[in-house]
Amino acid sequence: MKNTSALFSIGLDFGTLSVRAVLVNASTGEVEGRSEAVYPGGCMEVEKGYALSDPKDYLECMVKAVHELMNESGTEPEQVIAIGVDATSSTVLPVDEALRPLSERTEFQDHPQALIKLWKHHGGEAECPRILEAAEAVPGLLSSYGGHVSAEWMLPKVLETLHKDREVFDKTAWFMEAADWITSRLLGRPVLSVCTMGFKAFYKNGQFPPVSFFETLDPALADFPKRYGSLPITNPGEKAGSLCHEMAEKLGLCEGIAVGTAMIDAHASFVGGGLQKPGELMLIMGTSSCELILTEQECFVPGIQGIVKDGIVPGFYGIEAGQSAVGDLFDWFVHHMVPGAYEEEARQRGLSLHQLLSEKMTELPAGTSGLVALDWFNGARSPLMDFSRTGVIAGLTLSTTPEQIYKALVEATAFGTRWIVETLEKSGVSVTSIMLSGGIPQKNPVISGIYASILDRPLTLCQRKEASARGAALLAFSASGSVCGCDMPERAHVDAETVYDPNPQERSAYDELYQRYRRLAEYFQSEK
Amino acid sequence: MKNTSALFSIGLDFGTLSVRAVLVNASTGEVEGRSEAVYPGGCMEVEKGYALSDPKDYLECMVKAVHELMNESGTEPEQVIAIGVDATSSTVLPVDEALRPLSERTEFQDHPQALIKLWKHHGGEAECPRILEAAEAVPGLLSSYGGHVSAEWMLPKVLETLHKDREVFDKTAWFMEAADWITSRLLGRPVLSVCTMGFKAFYKNGQFPPVSFFETLDPALADFPKRYGSLPITNPGEKAGSLCHEMAEKLGLCEGIAVGTAMIDAHASFVGGGLQKPGELMLIMGTSSCELILTEQECFVPGIQGIVKDGIVPGFYGIEAGQSAVGDLFDWFVHHMVPGAYEEEARQRGLSLHQLLSEKMTELPAGTSGLVALDWFNGARSPLMDFSRTGVIAGLTLSTTPEQIYKALVEATAFGTRWIVETLEKSGVSVTSIMLSGGIPQKNPVISGIYASILDRPLTLCQRKEASARGAALLAFSASGSVCGCDMPERAHVDAETVYDPNPQERSAYDELYQRYRRLAEYFQSEK
Repeated sequence: MKNTSALFSIGLDFGTLSVRAVLVNASTGEVEGRSEAVYPGGCMEVEKGYALSDPKDYLECMVKAVHELMNESGTEPEQVIAIGVDATSSTVLPVDEALRPLSERTEFQDHPQALIKLWKHHGGEAECPRILEAAEAVPGLLSSYGGHVSAEWMLPKVLETLHKDREVFDKTAWFMEAADWITSRLLGRPVLSVCTMGFKAFYKNGQFPPVSFFETLDPALADFPKRYGSLPITNPGEKAGSLCHEMAEKLGLCEGIAVGTAMIDAHASFVGGGLQKPGELMLIMGTSSCELILTEQECFVPGIQGIVKDGIVPGFYGIEAGQSAVGDLFDWFVHHMVPGAYEEEARQRGLSLHQLLSEKMTELPAGTSGLVALDWFNGARSPLMDFSRTGVIAGLTLSTTPEQIYKALVEATAFGTRWIVETLEKSGVSVTSIMLSGGIPQKNPVISGIYASILDRPLTLCQRKEASARGAALLAFSASGSVCGCDMPERAHVDAETVYDPNPQERSAYDELYQRYRRLAEYFQSEK
Repeated sequence: MKNTSALFSIGLDFGTLSVRAVLVNASTGEVEGRSEAVYPGGCMEVEKGYALSDPKDYLECMVKAVHELMNESGTEPEQVIAIGVDATSSTVLPVDEALRPLSERTEFQDHPQALIKLWKHHGGEAECPRILEAAEAVPGLLSSYGGHVSAEWMLPKVLETLHKDREVFDKTAWFMEAADWITSRLLGRPVLSVCTMGFKAFYKNGQFPPVSFFETLDPALADFPKRYGSLPITNPGEKAGSLCHEMAEKLGLCEGIAVGTAMIDAHASFVGGGLQKPGELMLIMGTSSCELILTEQECFVPGIQGIVKDGIVPGFYGIEAGQSAVGDLFDWFVHHMVPGAYEEEARQRGLSLHQLLSEKMTELPAGTSGLVALDWFNGARSPLMDFSRTGVIAGLTLSTTPEQIYKALVEATAFGTRWIVETLEKSGVSVTSIMLSGGIPQKNPVISGIYASILDRPLTLCQRKEASARGAALLAFSASGSVCGCDMPERAHVDAETVYDPNPQERSAYDELYQRYRRLAEYFQSEK
């Protein structure tokens, strides 16, 4: 039976295919309830490179997940004092003045541009060169974004709509990040977040780029700074506002409770995983990978996704770097390159192909296959930020086995991480510890062990599957008490239980192999 | 019923796993009978890199195949006026003064070094650097062998025996090429061939390298020039001698008929396929590939296997180049890298995986996958002659399919051929036509078509499966009539029925892709 005097914060994590809700105890910081609702419409790929969701799914699933959370945990509405939201990013949709998604209008029923564009939607790829050119003309801007522009950010997605569906564009009041939109709906008025805008929309030092920047892109964007700059924008850990009457009724919560500032999912998981100090790097490994770290000083790190003041934890600069293909790459290999005999063995032994190959990998000492790969199967994110790059496997012989190639691909992603860590350290960002998070390290200790040896340091594992939702809840709680959220980190304290130690016998083999990786990267970064 | 007044020549082709015998009509040059006997002992891999055969199998299978040939065709012994032999090369065995293989002695029952070392036996790899060094000190020697030394040649195999089994070495009268040994047994006395010795044992301008060369390798080899140089050595198309009484009895043939000069199998197939003029290149595609061409002038072509005066057809210099992994490479891919769903589809449709992938390949326009591969999965033979090199696949993405990789590997082998053709032409050897031969083009028109487009010229296909044995028979016939064999080419006339034309629409895509291949080769030829 629940202690009816305990207070709780709700965290909502909007993923690619579902929303997860958690109930976090405000005094212990522990998760005491969880629920999930899967979007009925899923992720829609109406054209190659497209990845769309229906905004209706987000709203309906939120209501469903919160009700289930409250009912199953037996929590009274009065016990919930805060609610916070995170979502994938840059995941963008067009809304009107009333915060209604344009896709709800009958006139836009068959307009893909009126739907939510997911983080991995690449329909705006063609817009990147002109954005890069315009951004280069704004002094100091690109230094916060690693010197490049990604098709996965907000502006390419906005420009895509302008050029592909002018009707939708003209009826749009704001293109909003999903996390900002849901948070705005909770308040009943529009609000933005330094986390989403800072990392995905060039918001820097309290402002968006100047009018001239937007005019260069297209005259239709000239009012962007005014239109977005006039909206309230708050920091992570700050209160975005209070829960409005309409949404309180729908969710079965009390009107007026604190709503936290919207977060990007990975950034929320940083807090939810218990990290709080500069130097602590979180490596989130899923279909792609994301590296997050705090630093006290602003600095230029080439090829990162962004460096944003107060962007993750108030008082620090938050840095995000990333790798384009990790779990996706291992899946590609398993689906396309593993022979029937392996599938049969896996079936008979009740293993997944990933488990079978991982087991076989453990029998391969580092560096003995002669293979080295480049992990650019979905382009090169950090530190090169060149999405035209492709993957390479070198060192193949007639004796090469599937498990050797699988291991070379795993190693390649770990070399990619090592390169990012070295780039950070060279740029003055010291990396004192690394915590693994996300689906892959939670499922696969063999891969985590290889990462420890290649990064040549012990790695801890964040055990929480709901780190993002928990982070959103913790930040919302801190928002309920004070403006700066200074007592949040204490509550978040640590969840790393497993430690992977590097294998000292593999150090020199991996040092050598990493140098081969870097030479290969050096050659292929300019190969035509 | 056979015309009992017709005259015939027998060709014996000693392959890796069996001996094939053919009966060739001396007036028409047509094959009128064939038989095959498989070696009971097969190919033995007693250690990694070893490939051994039992000499007893060669002798017994020869007798069996000839008897079957004669019986099944109803040929009288008096109708056979010549016999010729070819074999894989460099395929070497140690024999005593009586031409008996040392492996027949009880004392050497368990001595692998006493057996036949097949062409692909790599046990002498470690001997190559010292042979290369010694050969570089002999003026003009290496210019006939592309500037390199291959572990597949004769001397590394001899030195291996010296260093691994001194007992066998000390009891050896001669290390002989299998083709020379069988020919010698037919005569009842030792004889050598300009073809085998010229291409595989540094025999040049009528002599072996000087004593100093062999002394540098090992004092135990000092008498090599004397011991081998004193044996008779004859040219292709010349008579090696007459069939001795003992072997005539065993084979059921007439004593005294002409025995042709021993040939390397590929070189015999050049003649058997009907080629005779300088400029006509034969591309023999099997597990590996071999390029043969005649030229009137001596010239230096970097990275070839050899250039030998009178080595293939009397009166011309014969040139041999090669690629290490062709069919072997496609087999590696099919065995290790093709998913269960493809295996299932092939099974259901009654296709081999090669057929299924080839069918899928036809739907892929040239250059659209973005892939380019290096075919060095078994080291790089011509023109680099560096067996430490390995394979590469570049341009991989998360959308890459098995058939795209399969096609990239096929293209890589064709680019390797184009590189060899360009190297020949740059060195002054004009290539006026190309004929395909061997198992792959006989079975796979899709691959032949890709080669035509990449080589950018029409290719003819040698239809004869028994081109080697036929070549040996034709050369033996010519040996029976005259010393120089001048009426042989007329009889051999042409068997190319199918022509593959290049696809003009793919020319520019393949030109570009070939340039990428060369740049990749340029980078990886020195990559560590």
